[in-house]
Parts: sequence; structure tokens; C-alpha cells
Amino acid sequence: MTPLPPLAWESEAQRRRYAAGLAAVEERLAAVAAAAGGVVAAAAGATLSAGGKRLRPLLTLLCARRDRPLPDEVLAAAAAVELLHMATLVHDDVLDHAVLRRGRPTVAAEHGPQTAVSVGNFLLASAFSTLARVGDAAAVSLLSATAVALSEGEVLQRAAAHDAGLSFSEYERRCERKTADLFATACRLGASLSGNPAAAAPLAEFGRLLGLAFQVFDDILDVEGDEALTGKQAGTDVRDGTITLPLIFALEERPGLRARLSTPRPDRAAVAEVLAAVAATGALRRARAVAMGYIEAAQARLAACPDTVERDLLAQVALQVVRRYS
Amino acid sequence: MTPLPPLAWESEAQRRRYAAGLAAVEERLAAVAAAAGGVVAAAAGATLSAGGKRLRPLLTLLCARRDRPLPDEVLAAAAAVELLHMATLVHDDVLDHAVLRRGRPTVAAEHGPQTAVSVGNFLLASAFSTLARVGDAAAVSLLSATAVALSEGEVLQRAAAHDAGLSFSEYERRCERKTADLFATACRLGASLSGNPAAAAPLAEFGRLLGLAFQVFDDILDVEGDEALTGKQAGTDVRDGTITLPLIFALEERPGLRARLSTPRPDRAAVAEVLAAVAATGALRRARAVAMGYIEAAQARLAACPDTVERDLLAQVALQVVRRYS
Repeated sequence: MTPLPPLAWESEAQRRRYAAGLAAVEERLAAVAAAAGGVVAAAAGATLSAGGKRLRPLLTLLCARRDRPLPDEVLAAAAAVELLHMATLVHDDVLDHAVLRRGRPTVAAEHGPQTAVSVGNFLLASAFSTLARVGDAAAVSLLSATAVALSEGEVLQRAAAHDAGLSFSEYERRCERKTADLFATACRLGASLSGNPAAAAPLAEFGRLLGLAFQVFDDILDVEGDEALTGKQAGTDVRDGTITLPLIFALEERPGLRARLSTPRPDRAAVAEVLAAVAATGALRRARAVAMGYIEAAQARLAACPDTVERDLLAQVALQVVRRYS
Repeated sequence: MTPLPPLAWESEAQRRRYAAGLAAVEERLAAVAAAAGGVVAAAAGATLSAGGKRLRPLLTLLCARRDRPLPDEVLAAAAAVELLHMATLVHDDVLDHAVLRRGRPTVAAEHGPQTAVSVGNFLLASAFSTLARVGDAAAVSLLSATAVALSEGEVLQRAAAHDAGLSFSEYERRCERKTADLFATACRLGASLSGNPAAAAPLAEFGRLLGLAFQVFDDILDVEGDEALTGKQAGTDVRDGTITLPLIFALEERPGLRARLSTPRPDRAAVAEVLAAVAATGALRRARAVAMGYIEAAQARLAACPDTVERDLLAQVALQVVRRYS
């Protein structure tokens, strides 16, 4: 069971509504895995039950009309966005040769890369089968466009590896595809599938901005490298040559870093040196300011929403994203 | 441009109808790749333009009502099934470390495994975005169920590697998921999206049986190993421990082969020895008889179809599948 984040609820009924909603999403995720055959069920089930923040499904639920019960369509969409997210994690772990995720062995480590690619495909296909059952062609179109963007974002990132000349706008474009589009889709589906079309556009924009902030904070953490907090090894971006916002800012202050970032396969010591050099500049502070700017812009979007929207809870979730990362 | 297979057309108009249909499908495939960013467009475009038989899209077109023009929905479905098929090929090449496919470098060889996994995901997501535009939720449900089955079939195959005790029915179940379900979907979508619901079930069954035959012939070829015909290295199944129908039959005659097939990572000489031993039994003849049985059953299904169906052309395509492999 995924615990709700600590939010200031208006009422116990409100808390129960979203606790029950997330529990129903968990059940759907478990059912997807259980419907599969032996190894797929085991691998997908372990991946899904390993938990995670379930931030994207929570956004979908919170973007549904607050003055009506949560409809089945919204629960299905919430499960679908999480399945798409999990698919990317399983594939990422194959390609990064990652052994652990959230303290458990990755599918790739436990079942081999072949099975992990297939399990990722299973989760991706299950996202569509879960959403298709809703019978809303526009929703499926949106999810598929998001999945297309996700894969493009991954390719953009790899194509730009070790390109120390990456601009801020190129970075932002990649973050949109890799992360923010799925946040936007999670929010938009909550609104549109609960009969709140007027809220769909502002909530999608809220999600996009929140997703951008989320990605920038993630990239900051990879430099600051508190592994206890992130569960990931610090410096993976530097090691992989992924040029992120902190690195872009650090390069402005210290152009001498360029040569180091352009070198493929730096060793541990070289990575640590780059991280220390970046931290010694104003780059992390500036990156944090950019992320906070996205958060503020996201909050401003909520003001444009009708009062059928959980504006207060969504604003709180946006602050949670900040709090986790600062 | 993909040439039509050499069929005995009723008329030049009939030939032109399907030539134009396949050309329209090619345009859609090219448009999918072109809509993507730089590396994705290049990699996906190269994959799609490398051609192949386009057997699945042809089936979709041939399963549309013959007494009406080919509707846009059918062209979209034909492109979607090919995109799903291509996605599996791109992923397979990553996992098999394949360097060439159809005489061209694979995406994995040219752009690295990371990019290839993402390009496969792009093609998979594009299959759904292409079909979702049709606005038929049942069609999307069917395609997603097929994609789920495909990934399950791949996992089943890997989980059963080197399991020399694999039964015929387990083998058949795997072939359904890996191959035949997509053939069935290609056919069913042609019927249902052209307003021929009465033909959907028999044509889906025709497709399923044709797909089973296709897979058995493919597995026979991997033992016979005419690389000039297949474009693939012979003996890959034996090398990977994939127990196929010829091996199941050979094991019945020569149980002594079991130990060899159960050994992981056989060397070249060991693979060649197994292939020779299998060919010396009646296994290939028996496997061919099973495949022919599927073809005959598929043909029988056509008889159950209304005369709005291209029964004669579909029967010819079924024979092409045989001819290519015997």
C-alpha cells in the first residue's frame, strides 16, 4: 500500500477519498501483473509492488472533479500513467546496467536484460490496454503521444551526451519530453475523464511546469548526491555525459570544465572532481531558482482553475516536490 | 516502395488497388519517422525503409471489404500492425547483439543499444498513436492486448530456454503470443474497420493459423539454415536454447539430444552437430506437415467468409507463406 504524502487535508473524508483512490490504483496495477504469465507476473509484480511515490497517479486523482466521486475512468488513467512510467524505469535499468532500484534487485539484474526489455514492453502495452478499456479515443491518443515524446526524450539525451555546448532551451525541451509531458498528461486525463474539460488545459500546464521543476530538482540532486535521499548513486549524469542544468550554469562560470565533460567514460575520481567543481560555483543555487520559478508558475496556473479543482491539495503537492529536493 | 507479392490478380484494377494501398501504408510509416526528432527520425526511418515483406499490412488490406474502397481506418491499422512488428525487431536486435538485418546495420549496431531500445519504444508508441487517430477504442484494445501477448511470448521463450522437455502445446502457445496473435489482429482489424463484422472472426482465425504456420516454417528454416533465403544465421535457436517444433520432434526420436540442448552457450561445432542430427531424423518432415496442417485449416476458414472477402487472394497469400519456406 502506498502511503499518501503528508498533506493538510480539509477533512477526514477528503483524506479517505484519495487513500481509497490510490489503493484502487494499486489494485489495478497488481491485477495487470497477475493477469500475465509466470515470469512476467513475477517480474512486473515485483516492479509494481516495489512502490515508489505514485506521484503521477496521485496527480491524476487530484485533477479529477472534487465535487463528484472519483470515476472508474480516472482510476484507469491513473494506473495507465504509472504503468508507462514503470516501463521507462525497467528499460532504463537495463541500459544503465543498474542492479538495485529502491533497494530491490532490478528486473534486469534478476531476470536478465532480455526479459527486462520484454517486461518493459509488457508494462508499456499494459498502459494502453488499461486506458483503452475506458473507451475514450482522445485519452489513448494523448497517452500514445506522451509515450512517443518519452522515447524521443531518451534519444535526445543520448544523442547530446558529452555535448558541453547544450543550451538551456535544448535542456528544457528534453525535460519536457522525458518528464514533463507525462506529468501534464497525468493531470489532463484526471480533468478530462472526470467531466471537467474547462480545467483540462490549465491543469495540464500545471503538470508540465511541475514536471519541469521535478526534473531540475532531480538533476540538482544528482550533483549534490545525497544517496540516502535519492536511493541513486550521485554523479551518474556526469558519468554518462548527460549535460543538465547545474552543469550548463557551471560551464558559464567555469568554461574550463568543458573539456572534462566532453570526455567519455570518466573514472570515479574525475566524476567526483567535476561534482566538487560544480558545487563550488553558483550553479546549484541558480538551478534551484529556475526550479522554484517553475513551481511558482505552476501554482499560478491553479488560480486559473474553477473551484471544482483541488487547488489547495495540488498546491501542497507542488511544495512537496520542492521539499523533497531542498 | 514494397513490391506486391506475385499473385494471380483478377484484374489490373485489383492489383492497382492493393499496390496503392501498400504505397499509402509506406507513406504513413515514413511520416511517422519523419515527425520524430533527428536521431529517432534517422534510426526509425532507416528501419522502416529497409522494407521487409510487409506481410502483416498486406493481410490487413486484403481483409478489408473488397466491394468498397479501402478506408483510411484500414490503412492506419495496416501501418499500426507493421509499426508494432518493427518495434519487436528493433528490440530483438538489441538483445541478440545483431549487427545486420536485411543486409543493413541494425539500429543497435549503428546507434548503440540505449538508442535502439528507445527507438523500439518509439515505434511501439507510434503504433498506438497511429491507430488511436482512427477513434475506435475496440481497435486500440485489440492492438494493446496483442502487444501484451507479444511481450509475454518473448518472456515465455526466454524462460523456457534450454528446457528440452517443452511440449508441443507449450510451443504452440508461445507461437500464438509471439507471432500468430499479431497476424490475427492484422486480419481482424481489416475486417472490422471496413464494416465487415461478420468476417472479423473467421478472418482472425485465418490469420492466427497462418501465423502459426509462418512461425513453424521459420523454425524449420533455422534448422535447415539456408542463409541466402532467410538473411539470418542458421542455428540461432539451437544456440539460444530456443526449443522449437523440429527440436521437439527430433527429441522424440533421439532422446540423447536432450543433454546437448540443455547445455547453455554451445559452441559453433556443437550447434552444427545438433543441426545435422535433427536433419537426420524425420523431424523436419513432421514439422512441415504440422505447418501444412495449419495452412489447410486456415484455407478452410476462408470458405466460411462472405463473398465480400478477398478469399482467393488470401488463399494465395497463404500459399506464398508455404512456397517461401519449402
